Amino acid sequence: MLRVFVLHGPNLNLLGQREPEVYGSDTLDSIGAALDALAASLGATLSHRQSNHEGQLIDWLHEARAGADGVVLNPGGLTHTSVALRDAITACERPVVEVHISNVYARETFRKTSLVAPVCIGSVSGFGKVSYALGLRGLIDYLNRS
Amino acid sequence: MLRVFVLHGPNLNLLGQREPEVYGSDTLDSIGAALDALAASLGATLSHRQSNHEGQLIDWLHEARAGADGVVLNPGGLTHTSVALRDAITACERPVVEVHISNVYARETFRKTSLVAPVCIGSVSGFGKVSYALGLRGLIDYLNRS
Amino acid sequence: MLRVFVLHGPNLNLLGQREPEVYGSDTLDSIGAALDALAASLGATLSHRQSNHEGQLIDWLHEARAGADGVVLNPGGLTHTSVALRDAITACERPVVEVHISNVYARETFRKTSLVAPVCIGSVSGFGKVSYALGLRGLIDYLNRS
Amino acid sequence: MLRVFVLHGPNLNLLGQREPEVYGSDTLDSIGAALDALAASLGATLSHRQSNHEGQLIDWLHEARAGADGVVLNPGGLTHTSVALRDAITACERPVVEVHISNVYARETFRKTSLVAPVCIGSVSGFGKVSYALGLRGLIDYLNRS
Amino acid sequence: MLRVFVLHGPNLNLLGQREPEVYGSDTLDSIGAALDALAASLGATLSHRQSNHEGQLIDWLHEARAGADGVVLNPGGLTHTSVALRDAITACERPVVEVHISNVYARETFRKTSLVAPVCIGSVSGFGKVSYALGLRGLIDYLNRS
Amino acid sequence: MLRVFVLHGPNLNLLGQREPEVYGSDTLDSIGAALDALAASLGATLSHRQSNHEGQLIDWLHEARAGADGVVLNPGGLTHTSVALRDAITACERPVVEVHISNVYARETFRKTSLVAPVCIGSVSGFGKVSYALGLRGLIDYLNRS
Amino acid sequence: MLRVFVLHGPNLNLLGQREPEVYGSDTLDSIGAALDALAASLGATLSHRQSNHEGQLIDWLHEARAGADGVVLNPGGLTHTSVALRDAITACERPVVEVHISNVYARETFRKTSLVAPVCIGSVSGFGKVSYALGLRGLIDYLNRS
Amino acid sequence: MLRVFVLHGPNLNLLGQREPEVYGSDTLDSIGAALDALAASLGATLSHRQSNHEGQLIDWLHEARAGADGVVLNPGGLTHTSVALRDAITACERPVVEVHISNVYARETFRKTSLVAPVCIGSVSGFGKVSYALGLRGLIDYLNRS
Amino acid sequence: MLRVFVLHGPNLNLLGQREPEVYGSDTLDSIGAALDALAASLGATLSHRQSNHEGQLIDWLHEARAGADGVVLNPGGLTHTSVALRDAITACERPVVEVHISNVYARETFRKTSLVAPVCIGSVSGFGKVSYALGLRGLIDYLNRS
Amino acid sequence: MLRVFVLHGPNLNLLGQREPEVYGSDTLDSIGAALDALAASLGATLSHRQSNHEGQLIDWLHEARAGADGVVLNPGGLTHTSVALRDAITACERPVVEVHISNVYARETFRKTSLVAPVCIGSVSGFGKVSYALGLRGLIDYLNRS
Amino acid sequence: MLRVFVLHGPNLNLLGQREPEVYGSDTLDSIGAALDALAASLGATLSHRQSNHEGQLIDWLHEARAGADGVVLNPGGLTHTSVALRDAITACERPVVEVHISNVYARETFRKTSLVAPVCIGSVSGFGKVSYALGLRGLIDYLNRS
Amino acid sequence: MLRVFVLHGPNLNLLGQREPEVYGSDTLDSIGAALDALAASLGATLSHRQSNHEGQLIDWLHEARAGADGVVLNPGGLTHTSVALRDAITACERPVVEVHISNVYARETFRKTSLVAPVCIGSVSGFGKVSYALGLRGLIDYLNRS
Repeated sequence: MLRVFVLHGPNLNLLGQREPEVYGSDTLDSIGAALDALAASLGATLSHRQSNHEGQLIDWLHEARAGADGVVLNPGGLTHTSVALRDAITACERPVVEVHISNVYARETFRKTSLVAPVCIGSVSGFGKVSYALGLRGLIDYLNRS
Repeated sequence: MLRVFVLHGPNLNLLGQREPEVYGSDTLDSIGAALDALAASLGATLSHRQSNHEGQLIDWLHEARAGADGVVLNPGGLTHTSVALRDAITACERPVVEVHISNVYARETFRKTSLVAPVCIGSVSGFGKVSYALGLRGLIDYLNRS
Repeated sequence: MLRVFVLHGPNLNLLGQREPEVYGSDTLDSIGAALDALAASLGATLSHRQSNHEGQLIDWLHEARAGADGVVLNPGGLTHTSVALRDAITACERPVVEVHISNVYARETFRKTSLVAPVCIGSVSGFGKVSYALGLRGLIDYLNRS
Repeated sequence: MLRVFVLHGPNLNLLGQREPEVYGSDTLDSIGAALDALAASLGATLSHRQSNHEGQLIDWLHEARAGADGVVLNPGGLTHTSVALRDAITACERPVVEVHISNVYARETFRKTSLVAPVCIGSVSGFGKVSYALGLRGLIDYLNRS
Repeated sequence: MLRVFVLHGPNLNLLGQREPEVYGSDTLDSIGAALDALAASLGATLSHRQSNHEGQLIDWLHEARAGADGVVLNPGGLTHTSVALRDAITACERPVVEVHISNVYARETFRKTSLVAPVCIGSVSGFGKVSYALGLRGLIDYLNRS
Repeated sequence: MLRVFVLHGPNLNLLGQREPEVYGSDTLDSIGAALDALAASLGATLSHRQSNHEGQLIDWLHEARAGADGVVLNPGGLTHTSVALRDAITACERPVVEVHISNVYARETFRKTSLVAPVCIGSVSGFGKVSYALGLRGLIDYLNRS
Repeated sequence: MLRVFVLHGPNLNLLGQREPEVYGSDTLDSIGAALDALAASLGATLSHRQSNHEGQLIDWLHEARAGADGVVLNPGGLTHTSVALRDAITACERPVVEVHISNVYARETFRKTSLVAPVCIGSVSGFGKVSYALGLRGLIDYLNRS
Repeated sequence: MLRVFVLHGPNLNLLGQREPEVYGSDTLDSIGAALDALAASLGATLSHRQSNHEGQLIDWLHEARAGADGVVLNPGGLTHTSVALRDAITACERPVVEVHISNVYARETFRKTSLVAPVCIGSVSGFGKVSYALGLRGLIDYLNRS
Repeated sequence: MLRVFVLHGPNLNLLGQREPEVYGSDTLDSIGAALDALAASLGATLSHRQSNHEGQLIDWLHEARAGADGVVLNPGGLTHTSVALRDAITACERPVVEVHISNVYARETFRKTSLVAPVCIGSVSGFGKVSYALGLRGLIDYLNRS
Repeated sequence: MLRVFVLHGPNLNLLGQREPEVYGSDTLDSIGAALDALAASLGATLSHRQSNHEGQLIDWLHEARAGADGVVLNPGGLTHTSVALRDAITACERPVVEVHISNVYARETFRKTSLVAPVCIGSVSGFGKVSYALGLRGLIDYLNRS
Repeated sequence: MLRVFVLHGPNLNLLGQREPEVYGSDTLDSIGAALDALAASLGATLSHRQSNHEGQLIDWLHEARAGADGVVLNPGGLTHTSVALRDAITACERPVVEVHISNVYARETFRKTSLVAPVCIGSVSGFGKVSYALGLRGLIDYLNRS
Repeated sequence: MLRVFVLHGPNLNLLGQREPEVYGSDTLDSIGAALDALAASLGATLSHRQSNHEGQLIDWLHEARAGADGVVLNPGGLTHTSVALRDAITACERPVVEVHISNVYARETFRKTSLVAPVCIGSVSGFGKVSYALGLRGLIDYLNRS
């Protein structure tokens, strides 16, 4: 059974509450439930976590070294600014997939560069909550091939 | 009675102790007391909080969704680097006013761009501790007009 | 009695007439009247002037050397382009406060840098006509402390 | 039955032949066969096309206005340089998904900006041939929701 | 007896575990033990601390105002992004030395600018674990001269 | 009868006198006479004005709010530097057409960006004195369609 | 009788079909018919051509060396990216006029620089289909003067 | 007898009054008197003029076409921002010498580029009031050689 | 016998016809004939091809995988803009030499960066038609050494 | 008697020989003779030196600490590239005047920034050989005032 | 008999010793011998010189004015930084060919701009020691045509 | 016994004489004597050299290939400008340590990038003369580990 961490960065705890016309009306819980079902069908179990603290996300990525086979990560606003998070992805020595709910490339200029993408195995953005499902499928495919 | 969060970012706990020739000799406590008096005269109550942790400030902005009518925010050094804080301001769906004690535009180049300003309703900088009072007045005026 | 010049730059004579959804429906005259009342309560008298000519604004700033204790200045579009106006602020040797009706930081990229801000004592933007009142309060507080 | 165009840009005809350590050993034909099977299971039929000519790709995107419900597009090197292709995506008035086999964000600097991404509904990159499958799933999910 | 804080930023808790070919096989503990011996010979005692949280590092720098004579700081990935950490170095009013295990200037472009260096008394980088020893020597020499 | 202001910016009073090999030998007067004839045939009357003063041009654009149905404007060197003129074009709430005698895009780099173009309805450059005629035709066509 | 090529670049074949609120409801055919009438009145005959292929447009510009007295060119998205098209304009040794239906200067940043403009005799943009008529008038005036 | 215009731009009317430690204690009048004496010895008469209005300076440069053999110009803050003033220098078809009292290259970054210098015959900066004398000598030498 | 493709990009079909003072009076045919003679003396046969279509050039580079031992390529204006052509050079897995007739580095700024050069084995520019002969010599020397 | 070093940087030994239409027909010797006469009349003696070696110029600037009261320096092409020369000017602790024969600001872009100017007391450029005379006058005036 | 200087810049004396996998195992002497043979067959004699001193290379370029008909120059690291060397190439008034052993365009970013290329007649790079032979052939062809 | 070159670049011969408040009052000789004592205790002998000539420093780095086991280098102002010096460091194939007396990162912008750092094994800056001792310790530690 593959073990996968699903990590959500800053402000994602508000999913379903804020700006539903942009981010959809699903909450982290309902997204998590749907992902769990998909994971089960793909032979994986998930651990869902969210934090607004960069340091907490780094701690969890370190924990993934021993506790997970791979990570699905939505870094939120840290995507564009955190070298420390990038270093943690490299340091965890597990494949990490970057996902974004919205199409970040269609938004403000400062959202067009991702410090995180170059050290992830792949990226998915723009498909709403489905981005998580696609990212999870990509990660598990990668793990099964390795 | 209007409820307002007054949030102070990194290093502002040292107000009155460090570099008094730049930041003045007032402490957060003495500034808070003066602000409370002003707030009372304007029909508002304040909740004062300070943290050096970006994530904590984001948590408080989320709390403001239900717990406050508006926010006075001095983001300190996060002003220029934190997309996550910017996203939290948008996500809290309450009017936020940005204040700075010093005139940030007269300092180093990297302090001249504010990631936070575009999502605040207004900005005040350079008036020392009075910046907070001006920001509070502007916020309450805004809330009374809305 | 403190003497304060309130100077308005290019296009501000149209306040209340153009784009009221952005700039509000108050005219320079009504704003001036409200400011006069506030000034009286704060122990100051105001001289209101508007010009679309950079040179005229510079002349008035020079006049302020002898004729005013401080200046509230809305430089309009000159904010972002006029080194000469900046030099005039320095040359007038009086404290100058920069005010903007709209939140200039939320608008086009070329409005995000202010040549004027670094030589002012403080800046206020985004509070509509209230920006003037806040700027005046900040200036008078500054003058009383000096 | 949903109709989807799968469009491959310059140099992708060499898939499986050139640099297999980077791009894998699958050819466009074998990728196409696997995608057809996936499409059938999702209620869609695919039309596979490849060209090294920017103009041909634009013609096909125009054809998609009447002939397809959505498009999966790997623009190859045109991703970073073609405003005309971008305009064609807008002009086809069909949802388009951008896919890349390799993680373009981990390569040369000039590959880090995509002219195409802002006008696509979503992007997938870095999962090898699986990028196509993920992109197709994302597109069909989008079409079913619309 | 001089009191020195040795502060390690994000991801440095993994020293000796991750990428030993880049960062060496020494752990923070073994580095700390060797540093303690050096410190004793130089008339200083050390307090070793590591955190992945920017806010925690800032808190410790504040604590250094009263609790330390100087600081050896490896800011990790925060070196290049944190204005708040920079402000904390200034605010702690103690001499701070910046150290890096690897030669950051020989790595990615975004690692070539240090927000922290201008407010430190000196910088050492590239000598592996020896960077700490050199930084400590430099700091103590500075303290003895002051 | 449509009323149109034809405004000429700095240095255009020297047309026909300076550098005739670049700007032609026609003077503002002869150009104006030819334009008057064209305007008459198109059902419009023209008011011709020239100033080297930015503020004067802004005043005239304000006057156009009540006094004109549209404006043909050659901003001269202000094209590239004046935010205040740009704001005046927006503020006049009349359609404005930008014209240039020479092909500004074939000259120095600093002439390649126009602050004015984005707020005009259209632009014409490079056709010598005929640029004015083309701009006038475009404006009147626009007014007749509105 | 003057012979003029009217060349339309990528995506212009969709005129009247796509985004009519931006590009108007006229098709290339109806625009062409109106232009033919105008050309006849000005003593010219037109050859209308459209292609989504950069190379085809270059071939036609070469053909213009012998087959046309001048060219009206709407390069579409190639305006901003094609050095080869620019070189072809120079190489055809015929006067070329650049036209755009929309005001490209009021759109995305990457549309604000034209590689083509510096080698054309003049440019017209923003007047809808009338841009073609103005460009044709400007070209014929130029040819009659030469 | 050579006729020379000595033109002073914005804020130079305050010479001798503002910041004497930077600009010296000489006034425009005393500088003018000394320059007159020098001019007389060199066979020239001077016309001294100062304005804070860009447009006025342009008018005077136009006047110089007929009224002067050359111009000594201190453009003040317009040096770095005014394309219109630059065009006026070209248009006046008289040799113009640029002078600055302070060493503008040792000041803020935005003072390091001069739009005016490329169209002047020469530049002098940094010598205090003597800059004018040197510029006048250079101009008259140039005129005598022409 | 070594087989070499000699590929000419956009506008090179006009060699000898356009701007002979820049590009010389030799045509592609006469250059080809001289190159054939040189190739024969060096033990190689040439295949000469020209196209104004980026896609055609890419197709030929693909064909070179099986049909040629090396390529001499003059990419014309595509040098500076085509990532797709660059990818095709990599994908053809044959040594490619970049040649330019004129000294591109002495021309416009946008001609100073070559996307193609980094993936070619070498570059020759500025020697007129002789650039081709030098490039061919360099390529054959390379092939004989490999 | 004031002692002044007149230092000429790279390529200035060719004055009068190369490009006389740009640099004039005077040689260093004839310029030196004229300067000597001027110096005598101003109460100074000159030491003339030229080198194409950056290091030699630095050595001479060091020598000026004891051997000269001031320096007139034409740094030639080193103006724009040599931090070491700049440091030597600071280190010599004598007033240095920068002179250029041609108007460097009217030439290539890379000649528009001077590393040297900010540490000189003043700059003169564009007056041909007269630049030296003006620079010498400015220097001696400065020395007499100090 | 044509006389040609072959000038080698900094670090090229180590050819054959340092990094042979990058620069090959040939020394300057063996390259020189092969070049001499080629020169003899082309009717030229060579003078070989190497220096690590910018000033020495400039001196030799000056010497070439009288002593050579042309120059083959490998400027090494000075290629990207020396305006003085560039000026010397212009000043020597002899045709100069720039050669590089490695493909400088495939290396670090700061090696992608050549200050020297725009003033040379042509450039050759990437062919190892053969670059010299190609450059010499190009130069002699140029000299024979002149 | 390890042999180490200690190389000092431009202007460092003036140590102890110029700006002692910045660079300290120690001379190169006194620093050398202290370093010699340290070297002896660490099992190394030093060769001290200083030059203001870039070429001389390159020659010494070449000499270090055979004559030294490692190099301590203070490149002075060449740090930021000399690609040739950087190449010499690579070419010497000996470990080189970069040292700076002052904290270069706290000074002018152009001092913030080091061309030299990426090819050194480590860097030390800001500790005054102690920087040399720290750099020497780091180098010898490195040599003993190799």
